[in-house]
Amino acid sequence: MDLSSFSGAQGNTGLTWSNRSSVGVIGGQGEMGSLFSKFFTSHGFQVNVADLETPLTPEHVMRESDIVVFAVPLHKTVPVMRELVPLARRGQLLMDLTSLKSAPVAEMLRSEASVVGLHPMFGGRVSTFCGQTLAACPVRISPEQWQWLRGLFTASGIRVKECTPEEHDRMMSIIQVLFHLTTMLAGRTLRKLGIDIDETMEYTSPIYRIEMNLAGRIFAQSPELYAAIAGMNPNTGRIFSELKEGLELYENFYKTENLEGIIEDFQKSARHLGDFCAEAYDESSALLDFSVDLAHRKRNGTTSCPEKHDSKDRQVLPACRS
Amino acid sequence: MDLSSFSGAQGNTGLTWSNRSSVGVIGGQGEMGSLFSKFFTSHGFQVNVADLETPLTPEHVMRESDIVVFAVPLHKTVPVMRELVPLARRGQLLMDLTSLKSAPVAEMLRSEASVVGLHPMFGGRVSTFCGQTLAACPVRISPEQWQWLRGLFTASGIRVKECTPEEHDRMMSIIQVLFHLTTMLAGRTLRKLGIDIDETMEYTSPIYRIEMNLAGRIFAQSPELYAAIAGMNPNTGRIFSELKEGLELYENFYKTENLEGIIEDFQKSARHLGDFCAEAYDESSALLDFSVDLAHRKRNGTTSCPEKHDSKDRQVLPACRS
Repeated sequence: MDLSSFSGAQGNTGLTWSNRSSVGVIGGQGEMGSLFSKFFTSHGFQVNVADLETPLTPEHVMRESDIVVFAVPLHKTVPVMRELVPLARRGQLLMDLTSLKSAPVAEMLRSEASVVGLHPMFGGRVSTFCGQTLAACPVRISPEQWQWLRGLFTASGIRVKECTPEEHDRMMSIIQVLFHLTTMLAGRTLRKLGIDIDETMEYTSPIYRIEMNLAGRIFAQSPELYAAIAGMNPNTGRIFSELKEGLELYENFYKTENLEGIIEDFQKSARHLGDFCAEAYDESSALLDFSVDLAHRKRNGTTSCPEKHDSKDRQVLPACRS
Repeated sequence: MDLSSFSGAQGNTGLTWSNRSSVGVIGGQGEMGSLFSKFFTSHGFQVNVADLETPLTPEHVMRESDIVVFAVPLHKTVPVMRELVPLARRGQLLMDLTSLKSAPVAEMLRSEASVVGLHPMFGGRVSTFCGQTLAACPVRISPEQWQWLRGLFTASGIRVKECTPEEHDRMMSIIQVLFHLTTMLAGRTLRKLGIDIDETMEYTSPIYRIEMNLAGRIFAQSPELYAAIAGMNPNTGRIFSELKEGLELYENFYKTENLEGIIEDFQKSARHLGDFCAEAYDESSALLDFSVDLAHRKRNGTTSCPEKHDSKDRQVLPACRS
């Protein structure tokens, strides 16, 4: 699928939308809807928000806007679209901001409007757009219009990653589902074994601290979102199959005290990851240093650990400055 | 078990060791052995190193040292101790630096020497001791001597976490085994599904980037170490049971499209983690910002993203400075 060549329902090569267009955000009072409302406002658009408690109804916003952005929770996206997409018209641009793309994009394509599916790879509470990634499926939009829209995002420092809805959902089964499932399994294991997190944090290896911070971050957020991301991805079944097979294999190695078996499987995975491992080692070292320093400052209220030296050069490691 | 009251084989209250004591490091050319050789040297001790290619033999170092530190790979620790511990004498101090404590400490206790098991919760390549944690099992040492030894570590900014060998190994079944297993499962799944890591990194959600950096870091290191940490911990069996039970439960929820089931289990785990989740959200936000900035700098060679603003105050998010 050539993503940028579909000129779709527009049927002309001139620009249909500009920052004089009106933007309607359905679900514009949620975190992500609110962030993107601000984004469009900052680019000069007139933005109308419809949410559960707004004077404007979704139907009104749908009818009156040149560009409509769906920013409702993932598990409600398709049902909301089923009600509103029939009101869309040729010449409108429909977009959504949800974590899966196949099903929402298919719903929007039922209209005659132009359609771009978006998935911001960042939360609604980020402090900067700079360096953030936006996955985008420009499935029905003229190349000129897509370049214009894309330019709005890149002007804010956002990296735009183009993909088809199917590619997107397959990638998210790794990027999101795989890691959410292992995190949910870890959280469940901690609970079932009655582990006191504060007690484990007393030992704080920096890696564990980061792992637990990422896990806690997920559990601090919406259960509905995480359930929907894993539960609604068409590729989740394959992830389960692989996790189960791996777990049975490792348990068997453990029970038979077959360390060689674990080592061999580990080496195969390391080879698959290839050069990435060395890069990851370096980048994670910077992260670990940052995390140790952060934890130290939290505990002691001091400003910083002493300057780091290249570990190859040091003879004696620096102690604390404070 | 009162960890600090065991006066052990010493039978006196005076100091037996000081920084005039000689320290022998068995495996002193490995990363961790080398780090602790430097540590003791920096504190004024005379340090003798025995390793595979050193002129000094382990037996010689064992006989001639007041303090002996075992710094050999985990899966070789007990076999090496079986050969050398019979050479130990009353008045010596035996320590080890391995990732499990029950079995190595039990081996060292076969001697009449004083015994302290250590587990540095950091790698041999850290750039500073400041804020790092050292788990310590002072199982056979006078309180005075332990305070002195402990003081050497804390003077370098190391946090010392005292525990019994059994407590230690139980905690490590969470801190290390649980997270290593989920990482190995994730690595195996990426490999089995033929996922191109570089392709996934194109989407780089900051959480995924950190997760993958931590995973890659593990796969960049010794397979023998990770196999031994999981394969030799007496509590690993329980971790497998819980992971299997959880995986079956989640797969069943997925197959029956029971999002409510996932949500409920998620909420129970979130309740177990309690207040930790909110703290984790804050601390991980700082980590994510750091990671996004790091990745941005790597990509663009620029020095920094624009200053962050409190997300509550901002009207418009800052774009890139460069």
